[in-house]
Amino acid sequence: MSDQTITAAYYRGDKKFSVELRTAPEPGADEVTIRIAYCGICGTDMHVYHGNMDARVGFDRVIGHEMSGTVEAIGANVGTVRPGQKVVVRPLDPCGECPACKAGHEHICHKLKFLGLDTDGAMQELWTVPAHTLHVLPDDLRMDHAALIEPVAVACHDVRLSGLQPGEDVVVIGGGPIGVLVAMVARDAGGNVLISEVNPNRLAIAEALGFDTVNPVESDLQAVVEARTGGKGADVVFEVSGTQPGVDAMTAAAATRARIVMVAIHAQKPNIDLFQFFWRELKLIGARVYEPEDYEKAIALIAEGGIDADTVITDVSPLAEIQTAFEALDRSPIAMKSLIKVGENA
Amino acid sequence: MSDQTITAAYYRGDKKFSVELRTAPEPGADEVTIRIAYCGICGTDMHVYHGNMDARVGFDRVIGHEMSGTVEAIGANVGTVRPGQKVVVRPLDPCGECPACKAGHEHICHKLKFLGLDTDGAMQELWTVPAHTLHVLPDDLRMDHAALIEPVAVACHDVRLSGLQPGEDVVVIGGGPIGVLVAMVARDAGGNVLISEVNPNRLAIAEALGFDTVNPVESDLQAVVEARTGGKGADVVFEVSGTQPGVDAMTAAAATRARIVMVAIHAQKPNIDLFQFFWRELKLIGARVYEPEDYEKAIALIAEGGIDADTVITDVSPLAEIQTAFEALDRSPIAMKSLIKVGENA
Repeated sequence: MSDQTITAAYYRGDKKFSVELRTAPEPGADEVTIRIAYCGICGTDMHVYHGNMDARVGFDRVIGHEMSGTVEAIGANVGTVRPGQKVVVRPLDPCGECPACKAGHEHICHKLKFLGLDTDGAMQELWTVPAHTLHVLPDDLRMDHAALIEPVAVACHDVRLSGLQPGEDVVVIGGGPIGVLVAMVARDAGGNVLISEVNPNRLAIAEALGFDTVNPVESDLQAVVEARTGGKGADVVFEVSGTQPGVDAMTAAAATRARIVMVAIHAQKPNIDLFQFFWRELKLIGARVYEPEDYEKAIALIAEGGIDADTVITDVSPLAEIQTAFEALDRSPIAMKSLIKVGENA
Repeated sequence: MSDQTITAAYYRGDKKFSVELRTAPEPGADEVTIRIAYCGICGTDMHVYHGNMDARVGFDRVIGHEMSGTVEAIGANVGTVRPGQKVVVRPLDPCGECPACKAGHEHICHKLKFLGLDTDGAMQELWTVPAHTLHVLPDDLRMDHAALIEPVAVACHDVRLSGLQPGEDVVVIGGGPIGVLVAMVARDAGGNVLISEVNPNRLAIAEALGFDTVNPVESDLQAVVEARTGGKGADVVFEVSGTQPGVDAMTAAAATRARIVMVAIHAQKPNIDLFQFFWRELKLIGARVYEPEDYEKAIALIAEGGIDADTVITDVSPLAEIQTAFEALDRSPIAMKSLIKVGENA
């Protein structure tokens, strides 16, 4: 496969991608080259598109990490996969030496390299990555569905860290793509899930997926939760909104000894009702990306149909149209997950 | 013992106590009457003294709950204790029917009665309480030391909920009476404890007790913690200060996946660095009062000398001088724990 010419989409700054030909890198001894089938557009990719991450990614970067593909070639030391296998990449490359890595928390390494941001990513026909990042897929898994594994693994991590038990009452604050996936995983784990969301389009999607919903602008969320739970409150709350009202709601909706999972990225420092943490012995649990077991859980969930993948995937565009795909997603009030079909034969 | 006349100290409002004679109540069928030896002055009692809790306690209330004593008489149904036994009271009377009680969290019952605030307390020679609140003490435990069991049980609850493991790095933010007790219990559990405190008098006491200390006004707490821990940060942080700088420090000093225990009562809603909770997968754990096992642990710790009781007890006054004892504690820059000697023969 030496000197193969492939198509790749480069982020060039100022909301622009250019689709160009490049020479595919051959895998190093501990690397694997993957022929990409699909690559989803992540919220982080939209941040790149908007120029918010220019200092980190630069203007010569192939982004993309929510991918599916097939092993094309393996390095000399690689014994874990073989060409032809369907795979996904867990796009985390930890340093192995920082305090977090030494404590066994490599997924939140202090010097973490995130593939597709800090290195080139999957919006290209062939992608070469460290072999340790691969998870092998069942042969019969649909490759478009498999492109959801990465965001579903985020949701699996959130739900796992919550310690959710079957029959517990769950509130998901924020019904965007991640919130809906968290809700699906929590429902699969046996939770009684309520989604709180202010956007009518997102509410309609959540209801179409079979979820109970509340619009906290129109109804008193705390009163709704108390009515659903006999005055108890929610056992588990996922804060996915990233807003001050969401932070206010997370303590108001929580039962005594509830676990609140912080999924959202709060760039500001919101006001938080710490008295309620004391008074009701609440627990706040920060959750970021995923660990290998979350990937395995996500693969199993998608393989078993625990995620309604066809409803979550709202658009598919070829790599040549990546520019219009980003523009459309940026404008769309109803898109959940947009995929880029990278490979010709995907 | 019917119609016994005893001495009791009543809170009468406006920073005033009156020491009066009253008729001691006989125990009901499920109650026990205790001859009080000592009763410590809690921070909550100081709030009563300052008039902050008048709506709750009124002006005809005997307060006090950090007590030690001896069983004087038992009700008809009581089989758990016998007259003459040394005891302490866990001053919590839950409803048994609310969602918290039903979930097994009676200590933070939604309708909790706190003995000595919502009912008369231990600043009187004989105190009658529900039998279920009693813990029996070893015969040879000093009764002045035993008056520390209640606040030490608070610290035991905080440390237990933190999941502290031997060898872990601990920061206690706030070196007042509760902070120092938390530090002592954490040290006994094998933690490497640093106390952060701004008051020079309290710093001196903490140092006299053998703790490493830092004054965060003079030194950069985060830098000090990183230097002590090889850049890792603290595995467990106790926020006992109740201040915005304390809340800022608790996230800054925390290691990846650290547990932060919220001991302080934050009446305001401080700003909190939720991004760090996400980024480093921090955990915030609210902790309030104690459960039975925390009392048993506190009794064992004091019996074994794990708490330097003689240093913590800085004043002892007779019940007749309760007024001057509260006034002195209110002015004192160095007092840790003031006890009232209630019984003549204590």
